[in-house]
Amino acid sequence: MFRRVYFDNSATTAIDERVLEAMMPYLTDNYGNASSIHFFGQQTRSAVDKARHQVAAAVNARPNEIVFTSGGTESNNLAIRGLVEMLSQPSLVTSPERHIVTSTIEHPAVREVCADLEKRGFAVTYLPVYENGIVRVDDVRQAIRENTVLISVMTANNEIGTLQPVAEIGRLVRGLRDSGRRIWFHTDAVQAVGKVKVDVEEMGCDLLSLSGHKFHAPKGIGALYIRRGTRLRSQNVGGRQERGLRGGTEPVAQIVGLGRAAELAADELTERAVRVGAMRDRLEHFVLENIDGSVLNGDAHVRLTNISNISFREIEGEGLLINLDMHGIAVSTGSACSSGSLEPSPVIRSLGRSDDLARGAIRFSLSKDNTDDDIDLVLATLPSAVESLRKLLPGFKSSAET
Amino acid sequence: MFRRVYFDNSATTAIDERVLEAMMPYLTDNYGNASSIHFFGQQTRSAVDKARHQVAAAVNARPNEIVFTSGGTESNNLAIRGLVEMLSQPSLVTSPERHIVTSTIEHPAVREVCADLEKRGFAVTYLPVYENGIVRVDDVRQAIRENTVLISVMTANNEIGTLQPVAEIGRLVRGLRDSGRRIWFHTDAVQAVGKVKVDVEEMGCDLLSLSGHKFHAPKGIGALYIRRGTRLRSQNVGGRQERGLRGGTEPVAQIVGLGRAAELAADELTERAVRVGAMRDRLEHFVLENIDGSVLNGDAHVRLTNISNISFREIEGEGLLINLDMHGIAVSTGSACSSGSLEPSPVIRSLGRSDDLARGAIRFSLSKDNTDDDIDLVLATLPSAVESLRKLLPGFKSSAET
Repeated sequence: MFRRVYFDNSATTAIDERVLEAMMPYLTDNYGNASSIHFFGQQTRSAVDKARHQVAAAVNARPNEIVFTSGGTESNNLAIRGLVEMLSQPSLVTSPERHIVTSTIEHPAVREVCADLEKRGFAVTYLPVYENGIVRVDDVRQAIRENTVLISVMTANNEIGTLQPVAEIGRLVRGLRDSGRRIWFHTDAVQAVGKVKVDVEEMGCDLLSLSGHKFHAPKGIGALYIRRGTRLRSQNVGGRQERGLRGGTEPVAQIVGLGRAAELAADELTERAVRVGAMRDRLEHFVLENIDGSVLNGDAHVRLTNISNISFREIEGEGLLINLDMHGIAVSTGSACSSGSLEPSPVIRSLGRSDDLARGAIRFSLSKDNTDDDIDLVLATLPSAVESLRKLLPGFKSSAET
Repeated sequence: MFRRVYFDNSATTAIDERVLEAMMPYLTDNYGNASSIHFFGQQTRSAVDKARHQVAAAVNARPNEIVFTSGGTESNNLAIRGLVEMLSQPSLVTSPERHIVTSTIEHPAVREVCADLEKRGFAVTYLPVYENGIVRVDDVRQAIRENTVLISVMTANNEIGTLQPVAEIGRLVRGLRDSGRRIWFHTDAVQAVGKVKVDVEEMGCDLLSLSGHKFHAPKGIGALYIRRGTRLRSQNVGGRQERGLRGGTEPVAQIVGLGRAAELAADELTERAVRVGAMRDRLEHFVLENIDGSVLNGDAHVRLTNISNISFREIEGEGLLINLDMHGIAVSTGSACSSGSLEPSPVIRSLGRSDDLARGAIRFSLSKDNTDDDIDLVLATLPSAVESLRKLLPGFKSSAET
């Protein structure tokens, strides 16, 4: 049988067998609506409560600070729009002008929400990240104006894995709050949960987004941490679910899966990070040493252990992706949420890369489900794949020749 | 073993075994992100495409008119807010004043969205339903003003099951559109799909909401039908999924489940409606004939075959619900989305019922999964449950005594 290996775990992961096992009763016999008063409802209500505790524990929050959503995108929308719209009621258009600070490397679910708010009269500062792909705290400090109400900087980048200085930003914001300023800090931790320790107290954030399918829970379920006292305008208006913050019948099986996956991710955090990191490093070192014109994108140290984003000179990333796919290896060129775009990744561009390097970027993203055999297949396949694509471009010279 | 029977299928249903079977590959081996370019992504992309065809076929729409959402509440939010905000960009506050026509018996996911829009400068007319629980088309016609942009009337009510004259409203709106008016028609068909024929062409609607877990698909997945040419403002802003109308990684297993359930619901529509209707009628006739002070809520004929909403004089519905639950019978007093509210149901109040009758309303909602044995248990239990509760209230006289 043709063997396929999966190196696109930042796009999505397989559901853990133990997660599916926890979900199965709620896909079969325990089907009550968690808002119903009767036995069937109580049964699922207690399952939802348990999952809320599990998710809260995984990020060091209290259960009543966790709101379940349909995923990271909804969490980011609820956090950002929910906050600034609460401050701007009833018009939802800012008056007087309010200001948001974010970065150039945010996921579309943050970047496009901010762009949308710009159209509605909000001012937005997009902080640079320089060559290492990391926001500088000094830049954050200098960007804060008298009318800044929100800072949204991701915990770890989805394309290059770089860790952002969220704890320092959190301290900055907490200091301003202590002096009476009305300013809040949101972090998109979708890529971070399950890969590094995520602790809302250490990070000092008011709002934190997470998404189940990035750490072996099903797709279509996520959560938003909302620090007690933080008021948001509901984005999905309807029933009284989630304390009125998020209407809609609770997707119990999905929630149970999220809870179990969060618990497992916290319990196995170090073990997974170490094992995955060793595989990632073997892959990366081999590529950088053996393939001419390959360059690592983003800081080599301050990053998640599961992502390696490498640019290959004079290669179209999409061409390499398709070539590798024919050999059974699944990788990506950037965010799956932007796929179909012909533009080079804005994240890679933010590093100051040339058009050539930005177009030639490939993301390998690993998970606990990868094996050394998977890495072997890449090592055996990638050099000739790159070479065959470059042969189509007579201009390329290996570094040995130049 | 203690036997439990479930008569709360309007709150939620069990997943059909055939639906779960269709989902299982996407909860296990086929885990790719449907937006990814590689094999894993293509595999799930084609599953999403197939489900879109299935859902479209079930409501006589085209596949590209179906957008997947997290459920009925999100579909209603996207339909109503998405439409009026598109017309009011960039401020999202109406200027000049715009007008919406809806009814007093809409689900909270419509009613509260309209109430929220009122705060933002929209005018809303809430049409009455009279004793039969049905909106009159003449009232709709008379409510339409020069500035009316949206009519939102549900297909079937969630508490009493009454069918609304959506096809007539649709003809009215299509007539206005043909004469150049900018007016749209949305219908919340969450309770109707799988129980009556739902055909967007016959109904003449521009927007139609449906929710999987009401017809044996999982919770947390729904869809919005959007007639070609109808422009909406995205509510979940982010990636390019669902043609940019609904960001977020597609929940493939959920979508596959929705597709299969929609297909089954359409295939088995008549068979289910007839069988369920016979059970419902046996239950209802027995109750109305044998329990004093019991009154049917809503029209006896123009309604879904799976709902029976009955008021019991001098009974607290919630007390009866709890009593029946102790006997293994799950019913509800109204919408699960409003549970925890101490107010009598606004739907029952809209029928002109007294406070006493409104407080004493119980909804029995059946599905294909109910059996004649389930009905027998209710018939054997309900009269004594009602009697025991009334004994606590010395004022009650049976009709034989008065």
